[in-house]
Amino acid sequence: MRRLAVLTSGGDAPGMNAAVRAVVRTAIFRGLEVMGVRRGYSGLLNGELEPMTLGSVADIIQRGGTVLHTARCEAFKQPAGQRQGLAVLRQHGVDGLVVIGGDGSFRGAWALAQLGMPTIGVPGTIDNDIPCCDVTIGFDTAVNTAIQAIDKIRDTATSHERTYVVEVMGRNAGDIALHVALAGGAESVLIPEAPFSLDDVIRKLQRGVARGKKHSIILVAEGAGSGIEIGRYLTQHTGFEVRVTVLGHIQRGGPPTAQDRILASQLGAFAVELLRQGASAKMAATQGGTLVAVDLETVFTTPRQPDMRLYELANMLSI
Amino acid sequence: MRRLAVLTSGGDAPGMNAAVRAVVRTAIFRGLEVMGVRRGYSGLLNGELEPMTLGSVADIIQRGGTVLHTARCEAFKQPAGQRQGLAVLRQHGVDGLVVIGGDGSFRGAWALAQLGMPTIGVPGTIDNDIPCCDVTIGFDTAVNTAIQAIDKIRDTATSHERTYVVEVMGRNAGDIALHVALAGGAESVLIPEAPFSLDDVIRKLQRGVARGKKHSIILVAEGAGSGIEIGRYLTQHTGFEVRVTVLGHIQRGGPPTAQDRILASQLGAFAVELLRQGASAKMAATQGGTLVAVDLETVFTTPRQPDMRLYELANMLSI
Amino acid sequence: MRRLAVLTSGGDAPGMNAAVRAVVRTAIFRGLEVMGVRRGYSGLLNGELEPMTLGSVADIIQRGGTVLHTARCEAFKQPAGQRQGLAVLRQHGVDGLVVIGGDGSFRGAWALAQLGMPTIGVPGTIDNDIPCCDVTIGFDTAVNTAIQAIDKIRDTATSHERTYVVEVMGRNAGDIALHVALAGGAESVLIPEAPFSLDDVIRKLQRGVARGKKHSIILVAEGAGSGIEIGRYLTQHTGFEVRVTVLGHIQRGGPPTAQDRILASQLGAFAVELLRQGASAKMAATQGGTLVAVDLETVFTTPRQPDMRLYELANMLSI
Amino acid sequence: MRRLAVLTSGGDAPGMNAAVRAVVRTAIFRGLEVMGVRRGYSGLLNGELEPMTLGSVADIIQRGGTVLHTARCEAFKQPAGQRQGLAVLRQHGVDGLVVIGGDGSFRGAWALAQLGMPTIGVPGTIDNDIPCCDVTIGFDTAVNTAIQAIDKIRDTATSHERTYVVEVMGRNAGDIALHVALAGGAESVLIPEAPFSLDDVIRKLQRGVARGKKHSIILVAEGAGSGIEIGRYLTQHTGFEVRVTVLGHIQRGGPPTAQDRILASQLGAFAVELLRQGASAKMAATQGGTLVAVDLETVFTTPRQPDMRLYELANMLSI
Repeated sequence: MRRLAVLTSGGDAPGMNAAVRAVVRTAIFRGLEVMGVRRGYSGLLNGELEPMTLGSVADIIQRGGTVLHTARCEAFKQPAGQRQGLAVLRQHGVDGLVVIGGDGSFRGAWALAQLGMPTIGVPGTIDNDIPCCDVTIGFDTAVNTAIQAIDKIRDTATSHERTYVVEVMGRNAGDIALHVALAGGAESVLIPEAPFSLDDVIRKLQRGVARGKKHSIILVAEGAGSGIEIGRYLTQHTGFEVRVTVLGHIQRGGPPTAQDRILASQLGAFAVELLRQGASAKMAATQGGTLVAVDLETVFTTPRQPDMRLYELANMLSI
Repeated sequence: MRRLAVLTSGGDAPGMNAAVRAVVRTAIFRGLEVMGVRRGYSGLLNGELEPMTLGSVADIIQRGGTVLHTARCEAFKQPAGQRQGLAVLRQHGVDGLVVIGGDGSFRGAWALAQLGMPTIGVPGTIDNDIPCCDVTIGFDTAVNTAIQAIDKIRDTATSHERTYVVEVMGRNAGDIALHVALAGGAESVLIPEAPFSLDDVIRKLQRGVARGKKHSIILVAEGAGSGIEIGRYLTQHTGFEVRVTVLGHIQRGGPPTAQDRILASQLGAFAVELLRQGASAKMAATQGGTLVAVDLETVFTTPRQPDMRLYELANMLSI
Repeated sequence: MRRLAVLTSGGDAPGMNAAVRAVVRTAIFRGLEVMGVRRGYSGLLNGELEPMTLGSVADIIQRGGTVLHTARCEAFKQPAGQRQGLAVLRQHGVDGLVVIGGDGSFRGAWALAQLGMPTIGVPGTIDNDIPCCDVTIGFDTAVNTAIQAIDKIRDTATSHERTYVVEVMGRNAGDIALHVALAGGAESVLIPEAPFSLDDVIRKLQRGVARGKKHSIILVAEGAGSGIEIGRYLTQHTGFEVRVTVLGHIQRGGPPTAQDRILASQLGAFAVELLRQGASAKMAATQGGTLVAVDLETVFTTPRQPDMRLYELANMLSI
Repeated sequence: MRRLAVLTSGGDAPGMNAAVRAVVRTAIFRGLEVMGVRRGYSGLLNGELEPMTLGSVADIIQRGGTVLHTARCEAFKQPAGQRQGLAVLRQHGVDGLVVIGGDGSFRGAWALAQLGMPTIGVPGTIDNDIPCCDVTIGFDTAVNTAIQAIDKIRDTATSHERTYVVEVMGRNAGDIALHVALAGGAESVLIPEAPFSLDDVIRKLQRGVARGKKHSIILVAEGAGSGIEIGRYLTQHTGFEVRVTVLGHIQRGGPPTAQDRILASQLGAFAVELLRQGASAKMAATQGGTLVAVDLETVFTTPRQPDMRLYELANMLSI
């Protein structure tokens, strides 16, 4: 192994830069050359590769987004695109690749590995929707950004004695909503992985009011329904003045938290070590806090859901 | 003058607590008693008054929202409601009132003053839509909250090379949008006080792209149009992937900035001094950094708009 | 079991309020009464107990510090004090106690358990110096506060091309320094658990300069030496302008991070369940992300050190 | 006028980048070329000038520090150095210069103006120690950083019921200490511009304790004495456990606040307009919110002090 490449793909997540930095510096520390691919698989197909140095990744550990940029790429979902990607990597003398991204990005990584390019995936997505790992890079930052928003909304909810519906990201996974609800002290949380009834939400609101509670926050994962529609339903059926906020893209950005920077540093370094050991088609991850290499095929076929004990805990603590 | 009362009314704004604290502590320092009215004019009509002490306002200077709570009150817009409010204040031995809020709250303050209750208004609203003063309490915090959001959105806009439309608060006033656009380095800003054409926005976007600029942020004040509709229009007419975020109620909350705490402290203390001097139907404000008492009637009849030189500056700097 | 009590003891840590809330709400959910002890063991000896309700712990999950207050208490280190503490608890009808704090607090908890009061410890300290658990409540917040400070210092270090020494908390444990160094991209880190030589630090600085690196940050754990003295040594032996910052008590406060709120919620609830199951003299903790009850005697006798693989990683990535 | 140059000098301040951006973009908007001088006057003497484009200043408005870097320069205090600086500017075809910095930087600017190079100063320093202007660039950010620290320290001060001494920056000016004390609700503030007695501070502490107040924060400006020595004195003379924090260099960095970005944008643009109008040896500033050009000689000879009414207000509100 002489020359690695690294790319970020799919939705950006805070900590991706820390992972890129760890890949680059570990590679150089191990005497390898390393190239950065810009714009994910799309840039790969266009040959957007450039050599990375220690200086290329200076002062980026604290930046949100990804200095390599990212993009979605339909062409790379097809065998022709994947073969072309392999050819570009070979042209640039690359003999190992680290792909930082989510499930879709790992499909491309797996395809390249099947074609003979040693490839390791690093889980980077704010959604935390990757199985077989404790947590994905970016999740902790997204949750902290959202609870800072919740803390602000609680100020105005309390002052006006109002009910707020807050929709957070998570098309397929309720992890952000669940963690934010628990950490933000929300009164109810609606996630795609658990059945819910808006009438139960209303009964809980009314019980709270009967007990003197004058404001409430209801967390909704994107995948569990539209915050705006849920707000409308609650307004119609309670007579309360219900306000809705859709947090949106602020959850993607910002300086990564300590945990995301450290996890990204660990996984980026570990991905390089795995490649040096001859591994391929693996995900670098932590399980129970320990670094592990998981077969990408296992990742693809393992169902996952959030920690449902946290769901029960959130419900118990919001009595 | 022996006993003052203080209330917060209308939309809550960060710094209202610092103003309440300043009213209470200045009154006590001057040997006066002071009562807090809960829930604005609505609570006044219900007789929700309680004595305030130095301890009542300890550790609140840094809190968003208002510990006195706030509410809208239709009844107080009518002469009967106003007379009832006067009666409640008289029953509690109150001989001077400080009202912290926006334009609507000042109408009520003025009515009470006309009925003979010495009343001073303190401008507290995130919208900055009060004439005859440099700035309102809460505006600086709201703008800083919004630029922190913009900084996060810029991370993901840059990584994905996308155009973002961000809608900020301001139904009647473009001040938040304008300050956020200037401070956030937005590429365009749409406010109700200035005519704009979406086709100009598109031309500017395309000029940027031609020059190699791959991402853009377009700020929209609530009062200038719907962010979602503007995003849809831009998507249709450019072929770019335009994303929309409506910042919403996070702009109302959070710990106030230093400037809001200091302004609130100054105005709260000054309002008490004005009452002690026998003033009534005035707004306590700063003009050019100097404390001034402005007739509420002047406030009601003076047109205002944001500093349009900042609008020109924002446009010049976003070339 | 009919009535629990909860206290916070030792140095305060962000997340203690979330733990108190979880204890109170879980107890009430389980049909138990719960009392709060103010000022730790000191307040216990003075009989400062008061009933807690759902409302007592409303809106505290996001607050730093501890609403129960905390104090150091010499008298409780003696058997006489411990017996008195037991008597006070018995007088108040308490038949189970949750103690949130660090190692010293656990000694008191263990003593009460030996005297027959079922007692569970919850690890709350910013230092992370408790063995047999993944992490202590407050550590994540302290580390994030410190990296936000490092990010700021890096701005001025870069602008002035200077070397900064930053001393962080950790009298006995290098965990904060190590995590901050790794997450902050520091050039060197000095912790009590690893031998170091200032001359190695100087050689690394000089290698950096030779390579064109113009600024550096050196992290020092309180327990590894005085930042001020280390700064003086480096200035004398390098000729560089070395600046020193001692972060100090800002590391103790502030709204807890999501992780600290969630961990505290889990451990507080789990502590109540353990008491209900008849357990005593245990620490409620997570190991590999799983809730476990650890004998306090095991906690007292297990040596610990930070994850030294992170130390190696920090050194590798700062080449 | 065909080609401008811009430099940052002296201590860095958040918002300097926004000012550089405004100079560069305004110059380009007006059809001028613009060069950036690296490392202040020191870099000027070394000929470290490079052309700036719209892209050079993209994505810097939100960054602390200065992308042009800064340095102190003894040589430029001498006429020989100043003549050499002029020669370098002439060699590069520069016919107008903007200097962003504090008092020392303005001395250099004035010298260049006397030698015939049109030069405008822009006040950028966190200390706010420049007369004839409302506020300097960087001050608002430094104050907000410090109050965020105070808010954290208050959490732990409250929990432990302790007295804290917090030393903030300000060797010659008490502005930071004064604004932070007022905005942070500190119990006492010691600044170089006002005589104070530590025994008065002690009496106030004791009055507070007598009234049930269990924690206090005492703000000390660097120029008013050493926080550590003051803490020692208070400990010795009160028997309280007094803790000391010296905030240090975190006050210099971080993303600038909205106000600093906007002020910097205004002043940077105005400096270019002044040069275009043929002005020289002026400071671009705001007075009462209005843009004004002040003779540098007036700046040098006008005494200044903080707004002492804020000092009285801080004392009144901390009763």
